[in-house]
Formats: sequence, structure tokens, C-alpha cells
Amino acid sequence: MSEAMRIAVLGVSGRMGQMLVQAIGESERCMLCGATERAGHDWVGRDLGEAMGIAPRGVTVSDDPLEVFAGAEAVIDFTAPKATVAHAELAAQARAIHVIGTTGMEAEDLAKLEPAARHAVIVRAGNMSLGVNLLTLLTRRIAAALDPDYDIEVVEMHHRHKVDAPSGTALMLAEAAAEGRGVKLADVSDRGRDGQTGARRRGDIGMVALRGGDVTGEHDVIFAADGERIILRHVATDRMIFARGAVKAALWGRGRQPGQYDMIDVLGLRD
Amino acid sequence: MSEAMRIAVLGVSGRMGQMLVQAIGESERCMLCGATERAGHDWVGRDLGEAMGIAPRGVTVSDDPLEVFAGAEAVIDFTAPKATVAHAELAAQARAIHVIGTTGMEAEDLAKLEPAARHAVIVRAGNMSLGVNLLTLLTRRIAAALDPDYDIEVVEMHHRHKVDAPSGTALMLAEAAAEGRGVKLADVSDRGRDGQTGARRRGDIGMVALRGGDVTGEHDVIFAADGERIILRHVATDRMIFARGAVKAALWGRGRQPGQYDMIDVLGLRD
Amino acid sequence: MSEAMRIAVLGVSGRMGQMLVQAIGESERCMLCGATERAGHDWVGRDLGEAMGIAPRGVTVSDDPLEVFAGAEAVIDFTAPKATVAHAELAAQARAIHVIGTTGMEAEDLAKLEPAARHAVIVRAGNMSLGVNLLTLLTRRIAAALDPDYDIEVVEMHHRHKVDAPSGTALMLAEAAAEGRGVKLADVSDRGRDGQTGARRRGDIGMVALRGGDVTGEHDVIFAADGERIILRHVATDRMIFARGAVKAALWGRGRQPGQYDMIDVLGLRD
Amino acid sequence: MSEAMRIAVLGVSGRMGQMLVQAIGESERCMLCGATERAGHDWVGRDLGEAMGIAPRGVTVSDDPLEVFAGAEAVIDFTAPKATVAHAELAAQARAIHVIGTTGMEAEDLAKLEPAARHAVIVRAGNMSLGVNLLTLLTRRIAAALDPDYDIEVVEMHHRHKVDAPSGTALMLAEAAAEGRGVKLADVSDRGRDGQTGARRRGDIGMVALRGGDVTGEHDVIFAADGERIILRHVATDRMIFARGAVKAALWGRGRQPGQYDMIDVLGLRD
Repeated sequence: MSEAMRIAVLGVSGRMGQMLVQAIGESERCMLCGATERAGHDWVGRDLGEAMGIAPRGVTVSDDPLEVFAGAEAVIDFTAPKATVAHAELAAQARAIHVIGTTGMEAEDLAKLEPAARHAVIVRAGNMSLGVNLLTLLTRRIAAALDPDYDIEVVEMHHRHKVDAPSGTALMLAEAAAEGRGVKLADVSDRGRDGQTGARRRGDIGMVALRGGDVTGEHDVIFAADGERIILRHVATDRMIFARGAVKAALWGRGRQPGQYDMIDVLGLRD
Repeated sequence: MSEAMRIAVLGVSGRMGQMLVQAIGESERCMLCGATERAGHDWVGRDLGEAMGIAPRGVTVSDDPLEVFAGAEAVIDFTAPKATVAHAELAAQARAIHVIGTTGMEAEDLAKLEPAARHAVIVRAGNMSLGVNLLTLLTRRIAAALDPDYDIEVVEMHHRHKVDAPSGTALMLAEAAAEGRGVKLADVSDRGRDGQTGARRRGDIGMVALRGGDVTGEHDVIFAADGERIILRHVATDRMIFARGAVKAALWGRGRQPGQYDMIDVLGLRD
Repeated sequence: MSEAMRIAVLGVSGRMGQMLVQAIGESERCMLCGATERAGHDWVGRDLGEAMGIAPRGVTVSDDPLEVFAGAEAVIDFTAPKATVAHAELAAQARAIHVIGTTGMEAEDLAKLEPAARHAVIVRAGNMSLGVNLLTLLTRRIAAALDPDYDIEVVEMHHRHKVDAPSGTALMLAEAAAEGRGVKLADVSDRGRDGQTGARRRGDIGMVALRGGDVTGEHDVIFAADGERIILRHVATDRMIFARGAVKAALWGRGRQPGQYDMIDVLGLRD
Repeated sequence: MSEAMRIAVLGVSGRMGQMLVQAIGESERCMLCGATERAGHDWVGRDLGEAMGIAPRGVTVSDDPLEVFAGAEAVIDFTAPKATVAHAELAAQARAIHVIGTTGMEAEDLAKLEPAARHAVIVRAGNMSLGVNLLTLLTRRIAAALDPDYDIEVVEMHHRHKVDAPSGTALMLAEAAAEGRGVKLADVSDRGRDGQTGARRRGDIGMVALRGGDVTGEHDVIFAADGERIILRHVATDRMIFARGAVKAALWGRGRQPGQYDMIDVLGLRD
């Protein structure tokens, strides 16, 4: 059996950072070797476990990424776009696998990852859940396989505090469906259906959003034809799945050629 | 065992009329004794079974309701508002149970049923399905029992040809929820949720509509709180349920006091 | 506005005990006034918040129930049958509302609650979730309203660690369905359907159990007839609902006549 | 635009045969050119439409397959194993596409199709629904992509008249899941779960069957892990989907190399 992978968590004090610490602890195939916070954060210099209010972990929170990257085979990064770009450079120097779950990265940020990806493995995804990535892939393939007699509807439900509709993941699923059909989502999207709508337009992709309670996130993609329906459904009940997906991505990265990858690669389902 | 109820179908050539003939044939507790069509319709004077393209039934289609009502213990009527008002008068004279599934009746039409209901049993409902009526009743009661920490959402799916959203039944369910809470639906209805919506407003009743394939009709009423959800779901797969509901209403009417009833009475669930 | 209810938690160190502390903290209508543990437990004598690893609460864990009951308007009890019987006597003396979620109580234990219920309000339920209790009630009423043409199936899903099937709650729902129909569950129960089963027997109540992942608990009661289905569904995603149900029961108990009650009373849905 | 495909229906008087006639009529890309029944059947020699009780179709039912095959580009066959073997030989001689939906074919029957497949296109599937075939394919791929932390459960619901459990399609889905994991279904199948079952065994594939009403067929494949579930769902509401799948298979066969194909090929999803 190969040696346990040494993984560091960047930005460890956030909700995702702490979940990553837990996810690394769950797997026998890896171990936590380092953790960073920004200079001045009150966790810096303390034992990580103690700072988290749990048992000591023997890992001191550092504000020096360079030092942390040096001892890590992989780093996991759910921080902010600018920090992530800087981390990519350090990961490239250290030849460390860089798993990126940071959201809100613009095209210019993404462009800056390219040089780093010539020297190190980067795995990046907007949603690290295996299930959602799998669903996205399947949605594209089914949409490509079925003709537009199959009406596509994307339904999502989230907790009452969510302020926008539909969810980013629902849009990702609808994009995948449109891509599978070779059309632009903007041309076929039917959102907020209400009132005298007329009959459904062939080829449209409908989207509706439910809100209520504390639902973590549920998504259905419905393909409805005369006489049958296919429904792909994802139910998230614990945000830990995003942390576990990131750990899986890190483990998958061992021994890969440098380059940019995503969760579809990790799942082994690239077409 | 009591004698089979003699039931006549009014407006027998329509889709609902023919389904009623089938529904009456399914039950041992009743028999078809007559059928009407408007004067001049080409079914008039023919054997009903033959006109329907099935085996002869020994019932001749008549354009004389008076004659038909005279021989019937109950008549079932999914015709049009004006015809239904005329039928009510005849049913009252004949002391026949009058089951009304006619839609689109205005307040003035309804007012004209009142004198008839002093002499005969009238059972009237916008939707004759037992299941939908039961769901409506339950929705009102649950909404009354639970406080507004339970977010209410009404979801419906219908076939791609439906031209309005939400469905009449979805509105009936949302009305029942609002009534249970002692509020007006218009004040709390949240339809067509899309874009930057802000957080869900406490007490709102959300409504969304899905369209696709040839779905007969599906309705969910969701009560979502922190940590739990209650969902009431109705799935219609065959329009025959409306015909069967009407037959059940007719059978229920035997021996009742004259008056106006609905499917809640038939179900024995009047509060 | 009336004064906040003073509530004590018995057996506070257990998982349910700690959830009760949290549930009481969530409501403005009540406050935590005391907490007990058995003599010798290492929480005794410590500040409750500190013992729980959170901020101090100003409530010291006591091993003397008498003292705790004296200062409480209500006590909540998810302990063990013998302890609960003893608590009932103390609650009766103190005229405190006694909310009991203890499971595994035998007939002889229950008999011992009767004298106490002459002096104090007791609310007891095997499952304190509002939703599940509501579902049970509705199941009984629907089963009574619909004839056996509606095939009843009870489906449940729980996490992979559950060692028995079907769940206690599924059995409770099936019992309610049988009761509604006026039959004994043992006579109509169809469990573990597999192989050459023959056609479904009219009047049977089917039960199936799904196991997987970390599902907290999901229950469906299906009423399936030709052309339509009614489905009552409960989804639990957080065990806190049991704690919140208990707090609701305590608040409901203020000002009631002494006697034994259950969650159906709390919900105001007693027939 | 290419010429409409001439399709003949074998064994036209059965339920599937008549549905095939309807399905061919629905598509502009094909036309009905012939229909067979066994010698002595009372439809032989009559106009097909008339025999079906609808408008004349200009196609006479024949008991001579040779004649019918000669004029057809494709034949669709939901007959019986021995007849299908004989038809395969005739189709090979006529170079006609042979779409086979016949069930119950044994290994020896299948062996006899091989020589025919050297000369003509054969498309054969136990279930011609596009949706079910797609679901089977997806099930295998997802099972291969996810590790056994994802507990797999297969749930199906069918009408009350079904005499065996689980359904053939549920078994097909479970087989696909086992295949994806590289295990034998017999080694991991957990059916009829009931009583003191103990915790779920890692890697097991659970199967449960619901029965009720007139449900045409519903199948769920659940992949449940800690924190998330993926569910693939197929809902059949009309047996016409099997007829439409067969017509799609015939149309797909035009211009293909001789050989044996199945619905996965038709869907263009062969790995």
C-alpha cells in the first residue's frame, strides 16, 4: 500500500476549511500536514485542533504558504480568487497538486492559472460534489441522445434564506442540457412560468425554483416525453460532500501529468 | 342487497360522457338507464354502444331529457352551464340525484341551482377526483395546524399543451392552504419566482408549474420547516378518475336529504 | 405577553438532552431553568454550557431532581423508563408539566404514570416530530375515507446503520392505516415482497424498507387506485425536530387540565 | 429528404402489434407497408384498419411472411421465440432490418439469429423503451464511477396484477449496477429486507417492490452516500413507448452494416 498523501488546507478557519480538516481526517489514504490563514488572523501560531475547539492536532496554523506547500503533496484551496492565483504559483514551484474550489474567479484569474498548470496538477470545479458533477455530465449526454420530443425541466429546492433563483447548480445543469442539444441556453430558457403562457414551446428548457425550510439543495432534471419520463435527481443533505469531493480530487491527482483537470476527470468520465 | 342504481348520462358523446358510460359499466352497484344528446346530434336515436363503436348497449340516445330523467334515479352532467341549469330543474321535478361536474359556472348560474336543491340532491365539484378533493381538505387542515415556520409550496406538472399556469387545481390547493392559515391567497402568493428574489418571506405560499410530455396531472403541497418536510402528493394518470368520482357521488346520494353537496361530503370528511 | 416558560431538561448530557437545550434556546417563549444528570456523572455541579463545550449558561447541572422540579413550570424527559416513572411522581408533586419522549416503556411503566396524571399535565409520544404525528393522523383518516380499491403501501428509507426493518415509525403509520380501515395490521400486512408473489391481495398493506447513506428518515404512505395515487410523505433531515416538538408540547401544556396527552392534542387535531 | 421507410408489422393483431401500427402512423419518416398474422387467424385477408375497428388502411393482413418481407425495408417483431427465429431467416434473405422485441428467447434461439445477422441488421432488446435502456446504461456507468460508499437501492412500482417481484426491468438495472462494480449480482443482492436485518452490508444492492393501482411501471436507482444521493428515475405511463422505441430502432437501422445491435446502439451511447 502506498504512503498516505500529505495534504494542507488553505484558509483553514472558514466553514469550508474546517470541513476539509474533518474530511481529511476521515480517510486513511491521506493526512493533514499543514494549514494556513492570512497574516494577522488569531488562529496563526496556534495548534489547529485547539483553535477549532477540538482535540489538539499537532499541526500549527501558519501564515507562510511557502513553508506549508513545501511539506505538502497536495493543497486544497477554497479561498478567494486573488489568493488562489498566488497559491497556484507556489503550488507550481512546489510541484504540489492544487485543488481549487474557490468561486467567483473571472476570466483573467483563470488565465493566470495556465502557466502554473504546466508544472503542477490543478483540479478545479465550481461544485466539488461528486454527485452534482456526475449529474451534469449525464444531463449533457442524455440531452444529446434524446430528441426534443423530450421536454426538459430543471427543478431545484433550497432553504428559505437563498436570495436568488434559480440556483447556480440548476443553471449549470440547464447549460449542460442546452450544450447536449447544441443550442444556447439563453435561446431556449423558460423561467418563471406563470399566467397565460400558451403551450410549451418545443425545445424549451424550463426552470423552476422552490424555497423552504433548511433544505441544503435538491435538483431534478426531468426529460418528459409522451408515455415516459426520465428524471435525474440529486439530493444534498450535508455540505461535507463538497469537502470530501475535494479530498478525492487531491488523491486522484497523485502521479498525474501536470495540467488542468476537473471533477469529470476525477470521476473518470471524460468522453 | 339493494337494487342497482339507475343512472343516466347527459351529453353522452363527449370525452367525459363516454368515460361516464364506462365508469357506470364497471360498478355492480349501478346500471346505465339512459343517455342524452342535444337535438340534431347524429347519435340521437341510435343505440349508444353502436354509436360509441363498441358492442350494443340496449340504450338509445335521446334528445328528450324529460323522458330520460323520468326513468333515472340519478343523472350525471358534465355539459355546459346553461344546459346544467335547465337540467337541475328537470332533476328537481323528477326527484333525481343530479351530479354536476360542469365547469365555468358563474355566480348567477349557481344561484339558479338553489331552488332545485330544495327538492333533489345535487352533488357538484370542480374536480370530481376523490384524491384531489381529499388533498384539498388535508391541505387546509394541515395549514391550520402548523404555524408559518412551515413554508408552503405548491408544485404542479401537466402536459405540454396546457396553456395556463398554475393549474386550477394548484390554485384550489393554494386557496385551501391560505384558508387554513386565515389569510388571503392574494396577499401571500409568490408565483414565477426568478432572479434576485431576496430571502423567502415568512408566510408566503409559493407556486411553480412544470410542463412536459403528456402528464395527466401531478400536484405536490410541500410544508417545509427546519429539519422536516411534509409533502402531500396527488398523481393522476387516467382521466377516468373524474368519471368514477361522479359515479361514486351518485351512489352516495341515494337516500340523502335534498340539498347541495360536494365531494367532501361524499368522502364523509366534512368537518 | 405572558412570561417565558421555565423549562428543565432531565438527563441533559445525552444527544437528545443537548438538543433540547438548543431547542429551548431558540424560542423566546421559554427559557432553560435547570438540568439534571444522574449522581456521579461528571457534569454534575458544573455549568451546563461549559460542560457542553459552549459558552456558560448560568445553569448548574444537578443530580437532585426535586430541587430542579421545584423551579420549573415544565420538565422534558428523554431518559429511561424507570427514571421517567420516578420523574412523573416528582412532577405531579411539583405540578410541573411533564413531557415524555422516553422510548421502550412497558405497560407496567405506563400504568404508573396514571396517578401522576391526576395532578399534572403529561404529554407523551413515541415520536415527538410534529410532521410524523400529523402524518399518522392523516393516514388513519384517509384510510377510513377511501375504500380498499386504494392499495396502501408504506415505504421508508433510513441510514445504512439501522438494524431492523421496517422502522418503528413505518409500523406506526401502517397501524394507523389498518385502524382507519377497521382491520388488524397483522391480518393484512405484506412485508418482504419477493419472488413469485401472485397478484396483490385486495386490502393488503405493503411495507418496504430502503437503507442507504446517512438518511435521517423518510416515510411515504401511498394510496394507489386505478388512475390516481395519493402520497403522504415525511422527510426528516435533522433530529432537532424531535427536540423542538418536545418544547412545543411543553408550551402547549400551560394552563391545561391535569391528564395524559399526546402530540395529536398538541397539534389540536384530536377528532 | 430521404424516402419514408417501408415497415411491416408481424403478428399485428396482438396488443403490441396494434400499438406498432399506431406508432408507425405517428412518424413522417416511415409508413406501414404490410402486416402478418398466422394462417387461419380471422384477420387474414382483411383490410388492417377495418380489422382493428378503425378507418381502412389500404394494407391487407397476410399469412405469407415471404411476400410481406419482400416489400419491406424493415419488419418489427413482437411475436414468439420460434416465429422470431423463422422470421430472422426470411429477413436475412430479404436484407430487411429485423427489429425484435420478442421476450422469452432462450440461448438456442439466440444462437439461431447469428447466421441471419451476417446478412441483415438485427436490433433486439428485452425492453424497447428508450428511457429504460438509457437508465440501464447510466446505472452501469455511475456504479463504475462511484465507490461502494454509495449504497445502491433499486425500487420499482407496478400495478396490483403483477405476479412476480422484483420486475424484470429492476433486475436488469441491478445487473447493470453489479456489472459496473465488477461483481456478480447474486453475491450482493439484498431482496425482501424485513425484520432484524443487521446493518446494511457494504457493497450490497438492495431491491424492493411496490405494488398498487394500475401503475404502468416506475423504477428508481438510488445511490446513497453520506451527505448526498443520486437518483435515476424512470416513469412509464403508456405502453406506446415500447412501440415507438421499436420504430426508432427500425429507422436507425437504415444503411447500417449487417450485425446484431441493441437499443444502446440506437441511442448512440455504446462505450
